[in-house]
Amino acid sequence: MKLSEIGEFGFIERFAHRFEDLITPPAMGIGDDCAIFPANELYDYVFTTDMLVEDIHFIRSKISPFNLGHKALTVNISDIAAMGAKPVGSFLSIAIPANVEVEYLDELMEGYHQLSQRFHIPLMGGDTTRSPEKLIINISVIGRIGKNQSRLRSMACAGDIIAVTGFLGDSATGLKVLLENHKTSWLTDYFVQCHNRPNAAVEEGIWLGEQNGVHAMMDISDGIASDLKHILKASGKAAIIETDKLPISGQLIEYAEAKRLNIIQLATSGGEDYQLLVTIKDSEFDSIANAFKKRFNKPLYPIGQIEEGKPQISYFNNGEPTSEPGSGFNHFV
Amino acid sequence: MKLSEIGEFGFIERFAHRFEDLITPPAMGIGDDCAIFPANELYDYVFTTDMLVEDIHFIRSKISPFNLGHKALTVNISDIAAMGAKPVGSFLSIAIPANVEVEYLDELMEGYHQLSQRFHIPLMGGDTTRSPEKLIINISVIGRIGKNQSRLRSMACAGDIIAVTGFLGDSATGLKVLLENHKTSWLTDYFVQCHNRPNAAVEEGIWLGEQNGVHAMMDISDGIASDLKHILKASGKAAIIETDKLPISGQLIEYAEAKRLNIIQLATSGGEDYQLLVTIKDSEFDSIANAFKKRFNKPLYPIGQIEEGKPQISYFNNGEPTSEPGSGFNHFV
Repeated sequence: MKLSEIGEFGFIERFAHRFEDLITPPAMGIGDDCAIFPANELYDYVFTTDMLVEDIHFIRSKISPFNLGHKALTVNISDIAAMGAKPVGSFLSIAIPANVEVEYLDELMEGYHQLSQRFHIPLMGGDTTRSPEKLIINISVIGRIGKNQSRLRSMACAGDIIAVTGFLGDSATGLKVLLENHKTSWLTDYFVQCHNRPNAAVEEGIWLGEQNGVHAMMDISDGIASDLKHILKASGKAAIIETDKLPISGQLIEYAEAKRLNIIQLATSGGEDYQLLVTIKDSEFDSIANAFKKRFNKPLYPIGQIEEGKPQISYFNNGEPTSEPGSGFNHFV
Repeated sequence: MKLSEIGEFGFIERFAHRFEDLITPPAMGIGDDCAIFPANELYDYVFTTDMLVEDIHFIRSKISPFNLGHKALTVNISDIAAMGAKPVGSFLSIAIPANVEVEYLDELMEGYHQLSQRFHIPLMGGDTTRSPEKLIINISVIGRIGKNQSRLRSMACAGDIIAVTGFLGDSATGLKVLLENHKTSWLTDYFVQCHNRPNAAVEEGIWLGEQNGVHAMMDISDGIASDLKHILKASGKAAIIETDKLPISGQLIEYAEAKRLNIIQLATSGGEDYQLLVTIKDSEFDSIANAFKKRFNKPLYPIGQIEEGKPQISYFNNGEPTSEPGSGFNHFV
């Protein structure tokens, strides 16, 4: 059987249940952004790992080594942020083909170090090896969070407001610019920067994790159409998304008009924006959003609501039901 | 500059020092088998990660998927054992080329699961993605150990007896059999089994870590000629190895004679035996070795001694100085 027939999640489902009886709660494994290891009375450790493969996740000629090192770490600390945790250490495994020079690797480590320094995350170990052809980067990050304070995908409640921490669709547009070789302009530079040098919402994640009204949380890596479904499945809830409320940058509005792009599809299915997707208790949303605005000088954007029902998303546009704009990225197709 | 000019450790040295000031002791990073994270008054967590790349670390046609899954986890829990720690959770990142079928992956996960079950190590997360060509496996393992009880490479003292937990050279002979397509026999089957299905000395590592007289410890992945040097560098000590005392299996003695193989070179530079290499306080060696024999029904083999001096190994054969048998494996040559 071909893997493309069952996909990533189909493959994981084939073995994940067999390992379940080996876990001793309150430790927690497969099924969230991070695994959880209890440490002491005050805090837990959380743990995540992600692999970036050349020509699958990045094209070497389309991203500078500095940005590649920076982004590879970003996508991992984004998973830590999605638990509400603070990253405290990273591990880097790298398989290097013969045509990659030491100077390239120095720049890659420069990007990795700059981000490590910004959030004070030591590189604590790893593995370095040769690769026959492609550059492969696997990063693991450990985070720390207050005892039992991790925000899980299973914590969404009916009535919760669904919100995101920033613009959606800019990174997907940057990927489009790169793959289709759009003519360079200040606009395309903006999108490519969003795609090649994303920011992880580390401080936002820690802050949101401290608010009692914040229920489920995850980071947006595959697009909300796909990522929100993980929250719905884990929580056993349905959701509505109001597409007219999705936060879209002025740049994307301008570029989409010129290029006739489908903004809603880019914003819901594009992926790699690394904003946080949160569900917040209805009655506390306004005060949390106000405090968020004061703390980060930007809005927390409400885009829909959790409801009772089967784990699926209903889309509305200006109050009218509308069809699903497209589905999330599947690495195996 | 080509990476082959500076090697794996040369590359790591280019950036490792820049991350040192980001670590807050007692946490510990690059430079040992594992990194250490303090958990509470009773124990620490230790952490290791290793990447296996097709055609660099394994050849798909030369190892069954079951054994590949088993071995990929073994090499990681061996690093945990080398700290004296107990493995408590694993993480698997896997990049899968289109020509690998689901049935192959099922068998690989079967081998991974069998070992996980044997030592009660839950698989707690990971990442699954597509690969353009080669099968790539990155595994991370977390272990737990009594507070400040980790056995480090830096702990060797002058006068310590150097010992290993089992036969050396069998795995390297297995690799030779596979690469040179030796004619199959019960002997070659034994060596191939040693190479493709090695055992991690988990229980031995935990037991040795509980003995006060055990100082430095690491696992033998590249061969003692290379691995012992890490202990010597970290401890600032020299060592003598008595090549006539190296534990060699009856199978290797027989096969080496028939095939005219250099036993000492295989035993010191071959690698992948995953035995433990320990240094033990001289005055306590006999009692520890006796207790080890009672507990594991096999000897702890003394092979040399730590001395004051520059970090280098002097080889002796039946009391006479002899030359270095060859050097450890360098992935980049």
